[in-house]
Amino acid sequence: MKLARFLDGERVAFGIVNNDEVAELDGDPFSSFKVLKACHRLSAVRLLAPCVPSKVVAVGLNYRDHAAELKMEVPDEPIIFLKPPTTVIGPGEAIALPPASSQVDYEAELAVIVKDRIRSVSPDEAGGHILGYTCANDVTARDLQKKDGQWTRAKSFDTFCPLGPWIETDLDPADLLVESYLNGERRQSSRTSRLLFPVPYLVSFISSIMTLFPGDVILTGTPSGIGPMRPGDEVEVRIEGIGSLKNNVSAECGMRSAE
Amino acid sequence: MKLARFLDGERVAFGIVNNDEVAELDGDPFSSFKVLKACHRLSAVRLLAPCVPSKVVAVGLNYRDHAAELKMEVPDEPIIFLKPPTTVIGPGEAIALPPASSQVDYEAELAVIVKDRIRSVSPDEAGGHILGYTCANDVTARDLQKKDGQWTRAKSFDTFCPLGPWIETDLDPADLLVESYLNGERRQSSRTSRLLFPVPYLVSFISSIMTLFPGDVILTGTPSGIGPMRPGDEVEVRIEGIGSLKNNVSAECGMRSAE
Repeated sequence: MKLARFLDGERVAFGIVNNDEVAELDGDPFSSFKVLKACHRLSAVRLLAPCVPSKVVAVGLNYRDHAAELKMEVPDEPIIFLKPPTTVIGPGEAIALPPASSQVDYEAELAVIVKDRIRSVSPDEAGGHILGYTCANDVTARDLQKKDGQWTRAKSFDTFCPLGPWIETDLDPADLLVESYLNGERRQSSRTSRLLFPVPYLVSFISSIMTLFPGDVILTGTPSGIGPMRPGDEVEVRIEGIGSLKNNVSAECGMRSAE
Repeated sequence: MKLARFLDGERVAFGIVNNDEVAELDGDPFSSFKVLKACHRLSAVRLLAPCVPSKVVAVGLNYRDHAAELKMEVPDEPIIFLKPPTTVIGPGEAIALPPASSQVDYEAELAVIVKDRIRSVSPDEAGGHILGYTCANDVTARDLQKKDGQWTRAKSFDTFCPLGPWIETDLDPADLLVESYLNGERRQSSRTSRLLFPVPYLVSFISSIMTLFPGDVILTGTPSGIGPMRPGDEVEVRIEGIGSLKNNVSAECGMRSAE
């Protein structure tokens, strides 16, 4: 099932995507819902980020080849960082390049969407608390990441976490092709089977630190092939079994609205 | 004015504290409110963290003596990190020591409470967008901070951000005494005049990265004198002109509720 969140005029709703249509939900996928008869053409609505996380928890250096390209050592436990909820944008929204950075990179990642309120679940239990998966771009100001040592500023600018196009609920995350394309040219290509810490381990590890809430997002790390984006570029994250997340890159930067 | 958030039975309300009473508000201090006639004895209600932040943005190494005790260099721009909202607890709530760490330290800090939705405000404008100030304890698993290199995990365990007892709105943050006490013994003592980056600069800097929302919290850094806490300890943060934030330390760790 592909769960989308969309704007129909000024109204926000969840829906189930089938081919080029979206069937509207009464309620939301994190609690109870029923499928309404109302059906929209996908082209007639605007897809939003498929959830509204209270937390975006990301994992660094989770592919060996990416750690190597950053000349960093592979960690023996996941290295986590947080991206504020104000980084989240949906498909088609512009990634805004901040004046403070002169190198802003794309990073294609599989995103895990948490289904329940959980704390300290085991890797075996984790799968039962995952609603599904979507595509993410962990946009990073590479120069500021290096300068600060701490990654937070580099990862936290408004618009630095495109998510979408929808949450695929029927998917095994163990071996999916993860790719990025810059202006149609493939730049990253790897498989989640190469994750140093696989999805169930990550959910367990992070839930041993903090209580996770429905809609919280875990970014699982990016493979090698990262590179910079410039104004006017189009960046695409494609994940096998999910779909494609496209965003344009802009020099403009406005204020984020609260959701 | 001292703005508190409190639990009266099962009901959460905001109020204005006067001596040993709290006058209840209809509404909340981030929008419009009126003061109700209902008045509670402070001892009859349970104070909560005085706001419910969407983001807790913290600043590292913002006192020269603390950078020295960690053997870290003083940065030329603020080093920021995020603590998830699930770290926030109120006065009197227990700080839970996680099994993953064997050294969890207190860090007394002045906390800034953001009043409005702001993006890219100047230092001169910043003061007009601050609702007020409260006491914070930026609890840190020191061993994990050193091991990870990235500070996020060490700073992100549930209960690792006590805030309170209330928001003081009429206060100049430029030169306040900041202290911590462990079991009644003074451990930290400095003044905000020694902050490397003062409050207006921090608000401006952080708002140039991310849109800030009403109730968001900025932790301004801790002075030297940090040290570990053990189960059964009582830790207190005292800030001149605000008051005292006391928390006990527990080995237990439960699940956080959503707010």
